[in-house]
Amino acid sequence: MSSRSPRTPALEPATLRARLDRARAAAADAETDALLIAPGSDLRYLIGEAGGSFERLTALVLPAADGVPALVVPKLEAPGYTHVPADELGIDVVTWVDGDDPYRLVADRLGKPGRVAVSDNTAALHVLAFRAALGEAEQTLAGPVVRELRMRKDAAEIDALRRAGAAIDRVHARMGEWLRPGRTEAEVGADITAAIVEEGHAHADFVIVGSGPNGASPHHDVSDRVIESGDVVVIDIGGPIPEGYNSDSTRTYAVGEPRDADVAGTYAVLQRAQRAAVEAVRPGATAQEIDEAARAIIADAGYGEYFIHRTGHGIGLDVHEEPYIVDGNDLVLEAGMAFSVEPGIYQPGRWGARIEDIVVVTADGAEALNNRPHELVVLGS
Amino acid sequence: MSSRSPRTPALEPATLRARLDRARAAAADAETDALLIAPGSDLRYLIGEAGGSFERLTALVLPAADGVPALVVPKLEAPGYTHVPADELGIDVVTWVDGDDPYRLVADRLGKPGRVAVSDNTAALHVLAFRAALGEAEQTLAGPVVRELRMRKDAAEIDALRRAGAAIDRVHARMGEWLRPGRTEAEVGADITAAIVEEGHAHADFVIVGSGPNGASPHHDVSDRVIESGDVVVIDIGGPIPEGYNSDSTRTYAVGEPRDADVAGTYAVLQRAQRAAVEAVRPGATAQEIDEAARAIIADAGYGEYFIHRTGHGIGLDVHEEPYIVDGNDLVLEAGMAFSVEPGIYQPGRWGARIEDIVVVTADGAEALNNRPHELVVLGS
Repeated sequence: MSSRSPRTPALEPATLRARLDRARAAAADAETDALLIAPGSDLRYLIGEAGGSFERLTALVLPAADGVPALVVPKLEAPGYTHVPADELGIDVVTWVDGDDPYRLVADRLGKPGRVAVSDNTAALHVLAFRAALGEAEQTLAGPVVRELRMRKDAAEIDALRRAGAAIDRVHARMGEWLRPGRTEAEVGADITAAIVEEGHAHADFVIVGSGPNGASPHHDVSDRVIESGDVVVIDIGGPIPEGYNSDSTRTYAVGEPRDADVAGTYAVLQRAQRAAVEAVRPGATAQEIDEAARAIIADAGYGEYFIHRTGHGIGLDVHEEPYIVDGNDLVLEAGMAFSVEPGIYQPGRWGARIEDIVVVTADGAEALNNRPHELVVLGS
Repeated sequence: MSSRSPRTPALEPATLRARLDRARAAAADAETDALLIAPGSDLRYLIGEAGGSFERLTALVLPAADGVPALVVPKLEAPGYTHVPADELGIDVVTWVDGDDPYRLVADRLGKPGRVAVSDNTAALHVLAFRAALGEAEQTLAGPVVRELRMRKDAAEIDALRRAGAAIDRVHARMGEWLRPGRTEAEVGADITAAIVEEGHAHADFVIVGSGPNGASPHHDVSDRVIESGDVVVIDIGGPIPEGYNSDSTRTYAVGEPRDADVAGTYAVLQRAQRAAVEAVRPGATAQEIDEAARAIIADAGYGEYFIHRTGHGIGLDVHEEPYIVDGNDLVLEAGMAFSVEPGIYQPGRWGARIEDIVVVTADGAEALNNRPHELVVLGS
């Protein structure tokens, strides 16, 4: 037996009710008859509980128009949902036991739908079973519908992101306790992991300690490399606070004076690029304009080929969600959207640098949720 | 940026090569032209790396017959796979960048397949994109193909499960350090979580502390309930060791003398049922016969209605995998299969008890990987 259901502080039923109503309306606008939401952050957004993810089907069945929403859940796992205010949300809780066919149960509730959308994270095991049970219905993704809601954070969500940002800033503020020559990336990473929890996160979701040449690999995590004096070290860390909203912030440190002569000049370009992108954030700007604001400065300085990823990603109940701050995304930014601004410059085989803040679009600009110094912080070697 | 790729101790290329060959042969037997394996335990089983799970597509493309296998991975995330012996495994590593269509890339490699199977955990986001890119091809699940391999553990896998079992036994052996009247389930759970790591796990995957009436809910995790003298407490804990193989063991404790007069008698029935099920395990027996061995004893004693779940589940790189020890499963057990034997008796509103060992089918019976005493352990109140 295993239980992975995260602890979820209660949300106001009125807040959840409004989200469910908006989701049903958005489904109707997308000419979708029903949304089938699997355990995960979409479910947490809609009913306040992410649920566990098992081989047994759990799904929120949300009809666009007529019909009562249902939370279909294995009888064994139903106790994990007792804090969901199902009655106030107008949701039937429908339990099933081994031997029942939960997909048929869902299909029977939906009648003969023309189009049914499954949440983007639904496992193929369930996606194919729904397809078989729903026969003629066109199967689409619920992501485009749900993201329209989740992308626009309300005041409580922004406050949760603000607290997550402050918590990860407190961890960066303590970096001098751990980052020293002679220690391995893994040792430093273990200390950071503990501090992420000490400073108020539910757990550490990712800890990247990219020292020296490892800093040139954006998705490096930690290794047994021993940190040396003169190393430039990329520290990219984050995780969810108990409310489920995530932090994600990167700072780049130097352990003693940088070994490579080109660090100071290159870093100054990166810092200008990151600031320019943050300053470009405002309602009405497009996602790709923010990407371009950073990319242009880096390219003009001759480092374009060393900035090998998009400028940012949305953040909320997921670490990566819409809006993606990338070339080609002409999404118009609106107040309440939250995302990372994290350009980087990577010198293969030598060193890398990245600066990352989470920002929220305000009525007339942006609020940065990470506020540690943006300079290259030199820690005593 | 975030990185979730777990650290994977290297496996022998010959071991992985043999698994890949068996998977391709099993796919051919299932008249499936190719397997598409997403990040997760199936991928870890086949190439020794579970990979990260992101919005960007990563997939092992494994043709049943002709064609070179390919690991399709975002260029940014490729560094997470450098320890995979792709050359020795005969796998092309194919990277893609934002702007490419990775689904088209996969489809072009496969030509015009008749049937393509996706791993059971593949996210709908990718399942539907594969369906669109592969046009006419029938889309099925890879689970039935891969499970035929994963269900039959080799010596190295059994040894890993043995070490995981010993590690969780060491945690149960320390229960007296933490389980006391006046402490909340959550406080005890936090201590257990730390000990699970101290005793050799990569992390704690689940910690169930079901005290008093909470013990009657099999999927309870922890709560703020204060443990009282006289409580019966179900402790169901586990997690993966660094090699990725999981522990999962339950013991039931009494804090002082049990408050309820029926505990001793009921527990004795449960203990007989659990032992009978373990003793029934041997090659040639069916999964449902093991379930029946436990269920019959509990039913004969009049507690049938209080045993509300299957007797067990397979375990390996996943905590829940085939074979499931449940009525209706006529799978014939073979040496090398590993699963839990965990009957329980639950008295709603009062208390519950469960005893769980992981066992491996041997040439002539079963080896128990958990070896703590099966009696109701009374801890000082």
